[in-house]
Amino acid sequence: MKNTKIAPVKQGTVTTPRGFHAGAAKAGIRNGTRSRLDIGILYSGAPCTTAAMFTKNKVKSAPVLLDKQRLEEGDVLAIITNSGNANDSTGQQGMADAVEMTALAAKILGISPEEVLVASTGIIGKRLPMPAIRRAVREIALSPEGGHDLARAIMTTDRVPKEIALSVHGEFTYTIAGIAKGSGMIHPNMGTMFAFITTDAAVEKSFLQAALQQVVQDTFNMVSVDGDTSPSDTVVLMANGLAKNKPIVAKTPAARLFKQALQQVCTFLAKEIARDGEGATKLIEVKVEGARTKEDARRAARTVTTSSLVKTAVHGADPNWGRILVAAGRSGAEVVESQTDIIIGDINVLKSGTPQAYDEAEVISVFQQPEVPIKIVLNLGKASAVAWGCDLSKEYVTINSQYMT
Amino acid sequence: MKNTKIAPVKQGTVTTPRGFHAGAAKAGIRNGTRSRLDIGILYSGAPCTTAAMFTKNKVKSAPVLLDKQRLEEGDVLAIITNSGNANDSTGQQGMADAVEMTALAAKILGISPEEVLVASTGIIGKRLPMPAIRRAVREIALSPEGGHDLARAIMTTDRVPKEIALSVHGEFTYTIAGIAKGSGMIHPNMGTMFAFITTDAAVEKSFLQAALQQVVQDTFNMVSVDGDTSPSDTVVLMANGLAKNKPIVAKTPAARLFKQALQQVCTFLAKEIARDGEGATKLIEVKVEGARTKEDARRAARTVTTSSLVKTAVHGADPNWGRILVAAGRSGAEVVESQTDIIIGDINVLKSGTPQAYDEAEVISVFQQPEVPIKIVLNLGKASAVAWGCDLSKEYVTINSQYMT
Repeated sequence: MKNTKIAPVKQGTVTTPRGFHAGAAKAGIRNGTRSRLDIGILYSGAPCTTAAMFTKNKVKSAPVLLDKQRLEEGDVLAIITNSGNANDSTGQQGMADAVEMTALAAKILGISPEEVLVASTGIIGKRLPMPAIRRAVREIALSPEGGHDLARAIMTTDRVPKEIALSVHGEFTYTIAGIAKGSGMIHPNMGTMFAFITTDAAVEKSFLQAALQQVVQDTFNMVSVDGDTSPSDTVVLMANGLAKNKPIVAKTPAARLFKQALQQVCTFLAKEIARDGEGATKLIEVKVEGARTKEDARRAARTVTTSSLVKTAVHGADPNWGRILVAAGRSGAEVVESQTDIIIGDINVLKSGTPQAYDEAEVISVFQQPEVPIKIVLNLGKASAVAWGCDLSKEYVTINSQYMT
Repeated sequence: MKNTKIAPVKQGTVTTPRGFHAGAAKAGIRNGTRSRLDIGILYSGAPCTTAAMFTKNKVKSAPVLLDKQRLEEGDVLAIITNSGNANDSTGQQGMADAVEMTALAAKILGISPEEVLVASTGIIGKRLPMPAIRRAVREIALSPEGGHDLARAIMTTDRVPKEIALSVHGEFTYTIAGIAKGSGMIHPNMGTMFAFITTDAAVEKSFLQAALQQVVQDTFNMVSVDGDTSPSDTVVLMANGLAKNKPIVAKTPAARLFKQALQQVCTFLAKEIARDGEGATKLIEVKVEGARTKEDARRAARTVTTSSLVKTAVHGADPNWGRILVAAGRSGAEVVESQTDIIIGDINVLKSGTPQAYDEAEVISVFQQPEVPIKIVLNLGKASAVAWGCDLSKEYVTINSQYMT
């Protein structure tokens, strides 16, 4: 397709695509203090095709279990979401509370509870403060400008809201947008990830789910802050068709363009999550090239981003590149030391397994940048992958070793 | 077998079994300052049956590659070992240096280089300072009391030497002993693990290797300090037969007793490594019971000990047990939340997936102990496993984010 264009929408958010409304309120879920937005609703006034992916943790929060069930029964129109409490490991009471949350949202939207998903993030093993939630939901006012508030309401230890909207011009024009939350809580807890993505394009359902799965593989699933998988991880993509296009189906130019735009939204949000990891001062981008298989490339890249030794070395701007090689070596990917190159920034520190002469000060200065690019070339095949992580700081330890204070 | 007894030998070390000699010297490998023991030799005057296990990292240090080759050719009589430099990622020069180290030891022992193993731990990607090593090896004086010095020579950021000897009384009497080093370096680097184990029992070779593999599975392979696997990990078990017993063969009472003693040596050293992990202030012991398979039990237990979120929670004495459940949930082991119990110390915080009423102060006080016992009962089968780890402190970040200082 010629003359296609994907352009950012200035100050765009999840309600930028036509027909999406959002709003948020202060429930005081974390500690009873109604000091910040912590509950919100995302709603499409028009019927949506919905795709979603959830945590693969064997322990799943009540909201995740309920959402999976709902999506088997059909598409949805809304998501009610809160921060401060994950409603996980809460037994049967937790499931009843999750169901009630969808009913509360359904009531103010005038739709059926079966048309509502729920996503909760926060502390594990404590019951939701339902009276506070009931009161706050009634206060939520939805509007097409409400996306920014919703992006704020899902924040926990996130320092910045994470939102993006892109306008896509091809055979027809539509918008695709998303918000996400990253890792950590004020009551430190699981590195819980949410992303809610909206589009006014009409998209055929099976292609929508397939596109989401493929893109999530290369974006959110390549982010790590602390290696722990949350029981609440949730990505939902809602397409309401208000762009009035013929629904996008697989293997067409429009499908390729849609995937490209979706990839751009998810890559942006994934990098924002890594950059804003608990205690993080830097974004680490690890690219693995020349892997025997895609799976090998992904494993090696992810393992390097999750290595505490690599993360602390980058934190201290310590040019200790041996740790990068060795993390790749334990990843399970095929690695042949005598074929491996490592490039930090544009400095080749290892070539065919042999250490190169390099200026240590230059590597230190790459590690001091806010974005640290690391490339590992395995020279065993043609597959590549990129993973994103962050450094490990004393601040991370502080955040995660204090409770309820 | 009746009347068997395994008793600790007071101040025992790796040279307590008959016929083993050791010695150490100061080479100044790390920074040229000959301020501490950093090179040593362990030697059996009598021919040994040797069993060994090495790192599974795809990246292997030159010493590990050389040792594997030597052990394929036959048994050995000695190990030369150094701290301060791992001789890893050093290309062909590194292999030549490893070979030379075995030749230097062979020369002073009057044996062949093929009868010597080498084990190096320390920084990666830098060549060994061979002139310093040549000079220091000549200064090593071996004696039957030298084990303590050898235990010191392999220390890096270890705070205490790790050594044990047990005297075993059954049909006949023999001694089994071991030393080990844990994780970390003053130039922070891989968490490298060495264990050298000696016995004067005569042990049939295939049983010796099998016993070592089984015991290492449940001991050293269940320790984690930071989740990174070193390219230098080495465990060597030498049996010189000076107890003059009929060689111990598999599936006999003597074999069971030998495995029991070996398990005791390795468990002691493994726990010492975890307790003395970089920056550690506490030992964490995670027991998983009722797993469907042994592999599931091992995975769940190890994953909990490696979770940064669990480690920081224990560090801060934060009774955030949800993190324990969720780490088990992502381990790959079968976990059914509604069947799972969690017990911290003797406090049952989760029963059949339902949070229990408990006194938070009591859980905090368990987390404040120097040894923190955590039990997860999966109620899905009969398999169990124990893993050992340590807490994650700011000190860990400090140790690992500074280089060459």
